Amino acid sequence: MAKLTSRKENYSQWYNELVNKADLAENSDVRGSMVIKPYGYSIWEKMQAALDKMFKDTGHSNAYFPLFIPKSYLSKEADHVEGFAKECAVVTHYRLRAREDGKGVEVDPEAKLEEELIVRPTSETIIWNSYRNWIQSYRDLPILLNQWANVVRWEMRTRLFLRTAEFLWQEGHTAHATKEEAVAETKQMLKVYANFAESFMAMPVLQGVKTESERFAGALDTYCIEALMQDGKALQAGTSHFLGQNFAKAFDVKYATKEGGQEYVWATSWGVSTRLMGALIMAHSDDLGLVLPPKLAPIHVVIVPIYRGEDQLEEIRKVVDPLKEALQSKGLTVKFDDRDTHKPGFKFAEYEMKGVPVRIAIGPKDLEKGTVEIARRDTLEKQFVAMDDAVDHVHGLMDKIQKNMYDRALQFRTANTHVVDTYDEFKRVINDQGGFVLAHWDGTAETEELIKQETKATIRCIPLDEETEAGSCVRTGKPSARRVVFAKAY
Amino acid sequence: MAKLTSRKENYSQWYNELVNKADLAENSDVRGSMVIKPYGYSIWEKMQAALDKMFKDTGHSNAYFPLFIPKSYLSKEADHVEGFAKECAVVTHYRLRAREDGKGVEVDPEAKLEEELIVRPTSETIIWNSYRNWIQSYRDLPILLNQWANVVRWEMRTRLFLRTAEFLWQEGHTAHATKEEAVAETKQMLKVYANFAESFMAMPVLQGVKTESERFAGALDTYCIEALMQDGKALQAGTSHFLGQNFAKAFDVKYATKEGGQEYVWATSWGVSTRLMGALIMAHSDDLGLVLPPKLAPIHVVIVPIYRGEDQLEEIRKVVDPLKEALQSKGLTVKFDDRDTHKPGFKFAEYEMKGVPVRIAIGPKDLEKGTVEIARRDTLEKQFVAMDDAVDHVHGLMDKIQKNMYDRALQFRTANTHVVDTYDEFKRVINDQGGFVLAHWDGTAETEELIKQETKATIRCIPLDEETEAGSCVRTGKPSARRVVFAKAY
Repeated sequence: MAKLTSRKENYSQWYNELVNKADLAENSDVRGSMVIKPYGYSIWEKMQAALDKMFKDTGHSNAYFPLFIPKSYLSKEADHVEGFAKECAVVTHYRLRAREDGKGVEVDPEAKLEEELIVRPTSETIIWNSYRNWIQSYRDLPILLNQWANVVRWEMRTRLFLRTAEFLWQEGHTAHATKEEAVAETKQMLKVYANFAESFMAMPVLQGVKTESERFAGALDTYCIEALMQDGKALQAGTSHFLGQNFAKAFDVKYATKEGGQEYVWATSWGVSTRLMGALIMAHSDDLGLVLPPKLAPIHVVIVPIYRGEDQLEEIRKVVDPLKEALQSKGLTVKFDDRDTHKPGFKFAEYEMKGVPVRIAIGPKDLEKGTVEIARRDTLEKQFVAMDDAVDHVHGLMDKIQKNMYDRALQFRTANTHVVDTYDEFKRVINDQGGFVLAHWDGTAETEELIKQETKATIRCIPLDEETEAGSCVRTGKPSARRVVFAKAY
Repeated sequence: MAKLTSRKENYSQWYNELVNKADLAENSDVRGSMVIKPYGYSIWEKMQAALDKMFKDTGHSNAYFPLFIPKSYLSKEADHVEGFAKECAVVTHYRLRAREDGKGVEVDPEAKLEEELIVRPTSETIIWNSYRNWIQSYRDLPILLNQWANVVRWEMRTRLFLRTAEFLWQEGHTAHATKEEAVAETKQMLKVYANFAESFMAMPVLQGVKTESERFAGALDTYCIEALMQDGKALQAGTSHFLGQNFAKAFDVKYATKEGGQEYVWATSWGVSTRLMGALIMAHSDDLGLVLPPKLAPIHVVIVPIYRGEDQLEEIRKVVDPLKEALQSKGLTVKFDDRDTHKPGFKFAEYEMKGVPVRIAIGPKDLEKGTVEIARRDTLEKQFVAMDDAVDHVHGLMDKIQKNMYDRALQFRTANTHVVDTYDEFKRVINDQGGFVLAHWDGTAETEELIKQETKATIRCIPLDEETEAGSCVRTGKPSARRVVFAKAY
């Protein structure tokens, strides 16, 4: 298996090669649409399962709304149409016909839709159009729904997982009687995302609020989690939007209050997507390939036999069978790779590329000594362990690896978070070092845009933490109530 | 809660009302596209989970391929384009722009795609286009993939779950080195579907092969499971296709054999969809609403308190809390409906409408006597049971209800399966009684079409069972090797 380009040499190429060589995804012939390959999809399934449970534990149910949105719906919320109408896939016809020259098929001009349909870029409009019929009184609230779906945004520059025309995601859409409840929901789901990122992805995230210019089109507030990738760029990993009454007003969704009045309903929406796969890869992986946290690894342990001839393999198998079973009984997914078509070294490299957390190698010498060789993917440490201790040792490694990956990523983030007080320093850090830059900002969109133009850094978020130290804007010197987080971002 | 139109009065209206009143789904403003509501979706999720496990247990993995298919791909397989190009959603543009008159948005004529994209009606073409790159040698085979996805077929007449423009489904797509292996896979997946229908949906199915005219467009053989609905019409509940080398040839997918030659790859595809929801409803439900088999019920047991005043409710709660916990520890999903906004009678009707398998009612008299009232949804039987026996009794009911529902559906099918030897009898049974009709057929597409024109009955399948009794065609008198299954169908 050919080696990856190193991260140092070319980070972007390293990423593309890794996604392909670890069998995660590939580009399709359809511009900007990817194929998620079985191994990549199995990681996404683990993410889905964990998130879905968290959504249900917080009272949400799943539902499914149409893929197509009538063009006129998009226009109903003024900001929303600005944000989403521009680049989208438009269905104009509903039939093909055979060409007269017999060469394939063509669009049947007779089958033109009266109103064009948009392939959903997000579902606020179609869902709030339904909510109008579902909500009459305060008794019908809250509505706490989530949808797992594909969406399409016609991106010009695409990269596997990070930015694709079609992607998979979940979108939560909730309806509430009061502003307070909707804000609490928005924040709750941000916490769910942060918890998922940190506990499952082993990826520390900053929690914050977006500035007005980075807000979701149609939101009053967009909360986000932001992670730091190994190249010093930030990645927005999830967003939770407080939509106020914007969509309720656009779609005329009112409810009868307890007191007998009529009020517009309050809304939130929140989502994470297959972009998380990109974040997972870039947060942890190394020049040998993917490094997966045990909680999201499709295979926890691979066992590779070192042998010559069928007799030796049979001897090894006698030891492996009970070992595998014992590991499985601990809830681990174990693969015994006894293919005779590939050498151990090839297999080692393959599972390193695929990020399997633990590898066990067993050869004739191990059988003699009653040991196995156990290798950790995160640290690449190898260790001989007595066969009798192997199950407990490997089981214990799962938590250790999960924790080590988080700690390492947190250390990296800490080392790459810079408090900066002058614009020269700001530019130097952004250009030379990357990472998160904590700096004062005067709170205006103009200054934000100026800094973006001059440095390519954007405000990733206004952190939710408690620290509020006043100062003066790094660019204009005007007063600032608190530092915000800048970075170059994916 | 207003009652349903009875099945006898108007079966079709009964169905539509039930789907709405049981909160399963509703029509959206987008022609032919439905909204699957949370309760309906939770049943679909149970179906998905059971099927997904069965697919994985038979060695399949999930993956994800693009929603959009380049128009030219459809034309590559001649039969396939005939079957699927006609009614499909066509994406022609990738951008909207603001209208000059300020009234909303319009399609930007500048943003016309060079080649139109089809919203997938099924994914053979896009998947086999990928397989070309994935398959070089016999070592790369078999490929055993499945995809959970939405698909779009522009149907003119739609009905919730049964026939919608957009629907959810899974589509398996496998690639094999030999014909034998592909045929075995096709048959295996038919068995998986039959097993799912019978074990989970409690719905007996006939297994058979489609006639040439009913085959999937591009298949050499289409295997199917066919179920009988309560109105005597058949419903095709799942299909498994042996595709031969058609798609391999269309997309030039060859592999190097062990012997060093080059061969085209053999293919299968197989799918079930949200149509199963329609089958589930029509196979079991009654004039009071949905009847759900316990294995697919989102709620197994509902507990309704009968009380006056908060004090009585508190006393009941003391008994319900441990009961609920004990039932949950048996793996059952339990809902305690202590809403004070609705009377018990209303709640009874609501859970009957929603098909909850078991209802427990507890009132002050029960507390005195140490009993509870347990009602079965399938038989509507009520019974007083000692509180101490309630958990075991209810737990035991799950299997009983599951089995009873299957047995009842099987009895219905047996009673509505007619062996017919003359065309007069054939027409009489099809017209007056419905059900499955076993009759001889001369094996020609002409006769099949003639019978369809004259009676609206189609050949549902040529059964896979062993019985082969020769005879003469019910329509033409020509020789027939065996009886086939006719019915009017959804």
